[in-house]
Amino acid sequence: MSLIVQKFGGTSVANAKLIFNVANIITRAYQEGNDVVVIVSAQGDMTDELIGKANEINLNASKREMDVLLSSGEQISIALLSMAIEKLGFPVVSLLGWQAGVMTSSTYGSAMITRIDPGRIKKELDKKNIVIVAGFQGLSQYYDVTTLGRGGSDTSAVGIAVALSADLCQIYTDVEGVYTADPRFVKDARKLDSISYDEMLELATLGAQVLNNRSVEIAKKHHVELEVLSSFVDVPGTIVKEVANMEKILISGVAKDSNVAKISIVGIPDTQGWAFRIFSKLSARDINVDTILQSAACNGKRDIFFTIREDRLDDALEALSKYCESIKGAKLTYDKDVSKVSIVGAGMQTHSGIAAKMFEALFAAHIDIQMIATSEIKVSVIVSKEDTDEAVRTVHNAFFATMD
Amino acid sequence: MSLIVQKFGGTSVANAKLIFNVANIITRAYQEGNDVVVIVSAQGDMTDELIGKANEINLNASKREMDVLLSSGEQISIALLSMAIEKLGFPVVSLLGWQAGVMTSSTYGSAMITRIDPGRIKKELDKKNIVIVAGFQGLSQYYDVTTLGRGGSDTSAVGIAVALSADLCQIYTDVEGVYTADPRFVKDARKLDSISYDEMLELATLGAQVLNNRSVEIAKKHHVELEVLSSFVDVPGTIVKEVANMEKILISGVAKDSNVAKISIVGIPDTQGWAFRIFSKLSARDINVDTILQSAACNGKRDIFFTIREDRLDDALEALSKYCESIKGAKLTYDKDVSKVSIVGAGMQTHSGIAAKMFEALFAAHIDIQMIATSEIKVSVIVSKEDTDEAVRTVHNAFFATMD
Repeated sequence: MSLIVQKFGGTSVANAKLIFNVANIITRAYQEGNDVVVIVSAQGDMTDELIGKANEINLNASKREMDVLLSSGEQISIALLSMAIEKLGFPVVSLLGWQAGVMTSSTYGSAMITRIDPGRIKKELDKKNIVIVAGFQGLSQYYDVTTLGRGGSDTSAVGIAVALSADLCQIYTDVEGVYTADPRFVKDARKLDSISYDEMLELATLGAQVLNNRSVEIAKKHHVELEVLSSFVDVPGTIVKEVANMEKILISGVAKDSNVAKISIVGIPDTQGWAFRIFSKLSARDINVDTILQSAACNGKRDIFFTIREDRLDDALEALSKYCESIKGAKLTYDKDVSKVSIVGAGMQTHSGIAAKMFEALFAAHIDIQMIATSEIKVSVIVSKEDTDEAVRTVHNAFFATMD
Repeated sequence: MSLIVQKFGGTSVANAKLIFNVANIITRAYQEGNDVVVIVSAQGDMTDELIGKANEINLNASKREMDVLLSSGEQISIALLSMAIEKLGFPVVSLLGWQAGVMTSSTYGSAMITRIDPGRIKKELDKKNIVIVAGFQGLSQYYDVTTLGRGGSDTSAVGIAVALSADLCQIYTDVEGVYTADPRFVKDARKLDSISYDEMLELATLGAQVLNNRSVEIAKKHHVELEVLSSFVDVPGTIVKEVANMEKILISGVAKDSNVAKISIVGIPDTQGWAFRIFSKLSARDINVDTILQSAACNGKRDIFFTIREDRLDDALEALSKYCESIKGAKLTYDKDVSKVSIVGAGMQTHSGIAAKMFEALFAAHIDIQMIATSEIKVSVIVSKEDTDEAVRTVHNAFFATMD
């Protein structure tokens, strides 16, 4: 007998029929003799519906009250899912975040889990109940309801799996697992049997968002095995664990991220501290800088290029424009027409030539590489938006077409 | 400075515009220098909507999960109302039932308040916050969410008013106060300035349901002054207190109750214990017997007639049919075509002739009285359903037309 934590997202419980589909998955695991704890998100568009209600009243509502409002979404779905399991004839109990002992920081809207006291969950498991827990929500030290931010149900699931020392944490979603590339754009994309935590983290960061990043970090830290699988198709998914089966696969996948904008500042006098000034202005607004390219000094001046999330561009320009105006000769420009295409794979660490092979493939396809960034298990290139899908296909082909 | 508890029902917060109307009432009381605690119900049809979602999944869902589901309704309305008050620029905080310290029995769906720990509410009032509390819900000793049953928000409001030793508990509703008769049917019906707890209790029992009965009982026991008033029309309402201004008014109101059925059992052998047997069978099913009429023994046989709530009739007949079949000669019949019309008034205690005046008026209007029941402050008659409205008008006229 194992202890399994299962997590179902909002699309998996969007209506009564889907709720029964999920109830069947859960009760099957229970019938196989497992202890089952389930984390569930708000139904389909419920969160957006609730935000709509709030916006009708106050566009600047406090995050505290927003959390009270939004957490009702999971409350509805845990009750409905429990009722479906009751209907199937199994013992079940639903728990809200605070009942499940999910304690968080007081940062309403994007709270961090500080600790989980699984006492109540364990008591219900001892009674042989299936336990349905509201994801995405917790309780602050001031006994206020908090939410973990979008995607937070994954974090709830992994956190609870850690607290219970679960044998497996299954993340059910609307895809069948982690693919070597987005199967909607790359027809040869393959589902991976397994992938390492680090690779999964890089893929998540790069926009191949199958799992919430924080949840992967927690799983890695506490060695909880994850499985990403489909709630709609009954096939094995992808296991996320410490070391994946890397024998044959050098790279795990090709990812793209279109939420990218490039900022250029040219003609900065080559004095000390200018980089610090630029990036501190951005970090003050919580804007993450990604790929950075900086020119060698030339005539006492430097140029710098870097990318940020496109949806933070206006914010970034506002933060930088005053500073750039104050520097004689410096010029601030931006380009929204860029994307990032990356290959990820722990195999890179031991195999040379991976980056070269990627660049060669892009060159052969006449795709211009604007910027390059590399890490131990990742190579990213910035290309123009119109080249993105072709770049993904080309790179995927270069690495996976020869593997059969 | 006073401490005022205000309660708003679901129709008062049904949409964004109405929520702002309520927010204006609340902030006006706050601006006048009062501490304000507000109890609010789920929006308009929200409860029915949630029940619909549950019924789609499981018509026999456990009451525990039903309570988890339904309590999300008030959670949504406290958040939205708080956001509206924030928008108006006032300090506000919303509290769920368990945060407000409302402890209840574990009878899911119709829990009783066992105690209220107002610590958190007081702390928020000390911070000069307007406090918005979710009505209708509480927490059991097992840390499960419970609901107080329909109309329970009135009970929440009065309970919290008691716990806080509030100076006044205002129950905002869609009528302007307590009337001498239902103003929809009796055009001369007048709003009462005040009414005693006992009269209010009798009126509530008799189907003139302005206030939930348990809430009036709690208010009476703890001497909390209630005011019933409209959230739509800005006029003084009706004060409910220990002793109303009875100088001029003998009776406070005329009420009707159409949820009545009459059961007749004729030809019962006149032996000891038969009444006990009949009524114990009904009480075993939690069926309340109301007006009872029993004939004198005749030829060693008796007849008995009594009324119950019409919606319990099938249950009652099932409970009694076996017993009646077992008694030779006894015959069980019923009549759904009856209503109860009552006059209520503490003035009856000191004025004779009230009942006679009522019967005389009904006789003059050719309305047949089938049964009569009286208490210290109430006279009720059972009439046929088609005579009901005419009976109310006639009786109201007899007592109120001469009062100018």
